[in-house]
Amino acid sequence: MTDALPYDTHRLCELAGEIIVNVRELSALGWTPATSSNFSRRLDDRHAAITVSGRDKGKLREADIMVVDFDGRAVGSDHRPSAETLLHTQLYRRFPGIGCVLHTHSQVQTVASRLYAGAGHVHLEGYELLKAFSGNTTHETELDLPVLPNTQDMPSLAAQVDALLDRGDMWGYLIDGHGLYAWGRDMADARRHLEAFEFLLGCELELRKLGCA
Amino acid sequence: MTDALPYDTHRLCELAGEIIVNVRELSALGWTPATSSNFSRRLDDRHAAITVSGRDKGKLREADIMVVDFDGRAVGSDHRPSAETLLHTQLYRRFPGIGCVLHTHSQVQTVASRLYAGAGHVHLEGYELLKAFSGNTTHETELDLPVLPNTQDMPSLAAQVDALLDRGDMWGYLIDGHGLYAWGRDMADARRHLEAFEFLLGCELELRKLGCA
Amino acid sequence: MTDALPYDTHRLCELAGEIIVNVRELSALGWTPATSSNFSRRLDDRHAAITVSGRDKGKLREADIMVVDFDGRAVGSDHRPSAETLLHTQLYRRFPGIGCVLHTHSQVQTVASRLYAGAGHVHLEGYELLKAFSGNTTHETELDLPVLPNTQDMPSLAAQVDALLDRGDMWGYLIDGHGLYAWGRDMADARRHLEAFEFLLGCELELRKLGCA
Amino acid sequence: MTDALPYDTHRLCELAGEIIVNVRELSALGWTPATSSNFSRRLDDRHAAITVSGRDKGKLREADIMVVDFDGRAVGSDHRPSAETLLHTQLYRRFPGIGCVLHTHSQVQTVASRLYAGAGHVHLEGYELLKAFSGNTTHETELDLPVLPNTQDMPSLAAQVDALLDRGDMWGYLIDGHGLYAWGRDMADARRHLEAFEFLLGCELELRKLGCA
Repeated sequence: MTDALPYDTHRLCELAGEIIVNVRELSALGWTPATSSNFSRRLDDRHAAITVSGRDKGKLREADIMVVDFDGRAVGSDHRPSAETLLHTQLYRRFPGIGCVLHTHSQVQTVASRLYAGAGHVHLEGYELLKAFSGNTTHETELDLPVLPNTQDMPSLAAQVDALLDRGDMWGYLIDGHGLYAWGRDMADARRHLEAFEFLLGCELELRKLGCA
Repeated sequence: MTDALPYDTHRLCELAGEIIVNVRELSALGWTPATSSNFSRRLDDRHAAITVSGRDKGKLREADIMVVDFDGRAVGSDHRPSAETLLHTQLYRRFPGIGCVLHTHSQVQTVASRLYAGAGHVHLEGYELLKAFSGNTTHETELDLPVLPNTQDMPSLAAQVDALLDRGDMWGYLIDGHGLYAWGRDMADARRHLEAFEFLLGCELELRKLGCA
Repeated sequence: MTDALPYDTHRLCELAGEIIVNVRELSALGWTPATSSNFSRRLDDRHAAITVSGRDKGKLREADIMVVDFDGRAVGSDHRPSAETLLHTQLYRRFPGIGCVLHTHSQVQTVASRLYAGAGHVHLEGYELLKAFSGNTTHETELDLPVLPNTQDMPSLAAQVDALLDRGDMWGYLIDGHGLYAWGRDMADARRHLEAFEFLLGCELELRKLGCA
Repeated sequence: MTDALPYDTHRLCELAGEIIVNVRELSALGWTPATSSNFSRRLDDRHAAITVSGRDKGKLREADIMVVDFDGRAVGSDHRPSAETLLHTQLYRRFPGIGCVLHTHSQVQTVASRLYAGAGHVHLEGYELLKAFSGNTTHETELDLPVLPNTQDMPSLAAQVDALLDRGDMWGYLIDGHGLYAWGRDMADARRHLEAFEFLLGCELELRKLGCA
């Protein structure tokens, strides 16, 4: 049949359900204000399932999940993909091991992005929770979370991310005034990274208010 | 029948249900302390449905919603409308496109109103979330959220709001020591504006505590 | 029948249910940490229903509510009343119009009590929410919330409260390092006062962190 | 029967249920970010039930609870016990009266541990809530909560804890950049201690931001 969709619809259905449940939990934490943020899962080696732009993330339904190819074009629907889709698909295209990308806008992430935009990164060191990042097995590890300048020019932003990825292992980055991207092997892995960044950024802001850091 | 109500009771019933569900969610966030705050929806081109003054916003029932005309007078009931009803109806009268007005008292809104009352506005710039305001399509937009002096003289307050509305597009304003008014085409639009203001004011306060802004 | 209890058991049952529902909500807000806090309702002109000391306020059951007379002695049970029972019953004895006393330990209340213990009061002014206090009808009212030194000597503390009550209308007081007492005509009235104090103290602390107040 | 487990499986089942319910509540408070934290209950005089390392603490199931002996070795399963198991079992071995050990990673605990690591302890004084610690019956008591340097060398950490325990009564300790250990006779007792530490550390941090303490 010529009209057959080029991806596994059963798998899409599973992933959509998983996205809905997890994004509702993130929304209840206040990390997706005012219909912001977007979330995706790798569907196969050419497609990803991603939230449709502008939907209330606390009330996602299956119709709010669309399929895109790795150039960020809608597949099997006429939904307009979010401008930021490219920041998701560049990760899926480059790393076959990445299965989930989460982009949130918590207040802590936004404030930290503004505060450290000048430095270009947030230096995280001395926290046991650094062990939460896949591959880190000791709390002695330190980590610089990059902060990129905000722009509506997605190909330019994606190129900057690619340059950072060339340098070595990364689990996420901030965009100035905008929020956080975090990713992982699957939803659980990506959420662990997301939660760890949120927690560590929150600690850094508090320590700074207290006159340390 | 001479006693027929001059509005569509079926539509009122729908809007009351929508107000109840949404206000309970806002109340659970702590934005309506001590029975404060009020909420309305346009019913038609002469009437609005609005919460009765002094009710616990976390436990609203249908009997806590009344109808007013655009002069702020009760229609079809003998409930006493809130003194602030006029601040809702002036928006419905002036802009046929406004369908929902939300007035909340979160701590962030109250603190920001006190802090920026002298300046007369809160300047918001450099946030991706500025795109949440209808008509804004780039994060480069900046926005001044007005802060009006508090008073119990509602006609005077309404006149100040009218003067601000003459100057151009507005999505909300603060009243000193009091809280925020935000509005939109419908409930979803107004809530997106309300959430965006709450988020951005929270970021501004945090940045100020951290020695920026 | 000589063994008849000297109060209306049906009324006790109603009040116990009301206390349980309301205290669980306050506990969910984190205002009753580590089994602290206590809560009471007037039963009649000689008795009050009050929470038994040391129970987890998030998991109250009917067996966690006891009856005391206005000298703070257990009636109809051998539960040991909390040492602070006297601070509840002194209000019921003195003011027939008081029907509910709420004592909580939120972090904001505890921090404010430490911060303003030297001054002996927290001055609250310029907030619309001051209208939440029964009898206040304008936001122009100002209010001094007293802060008493902490002590385990309850008769001495009660005497200080009595001296304050002699001076005029009061809706609550703080005890240094300890928490807040608030009261009202009934549960709804007392909760409105409690929520208003919590909100206003929170605003004062935030404004102080921001360099104002 | 040679294969019989050396502990009471019915008791294990009860304790596992209790751990699951309580840890989900702690997780909902945000005290177990990114699969961190671990929790245990004494099973008998040679065994403890403890959470398996790396599980999402907000979604614990019975399969996420394992049995260890007091040397921290798995019993009756091939789960790998957390490296920190030894910090639990050293308490059970030394004090027959300890029935529950809770280790959490709240932001307040982590920030306080960083802030007071240099001093080696957090001094807590002037709080009514100090009465929450078993054996304390007056708010006049003061308490120094130890802060230990973080390390992955558990026997060394355990030896430092033992040295502190030699000095007198203790209800918990912090590890720098890591979190809090608190314990008690049973789950309710340990949770009361945990909540009291969280509350008091939160007050200390707030007072410090406000220019006191």
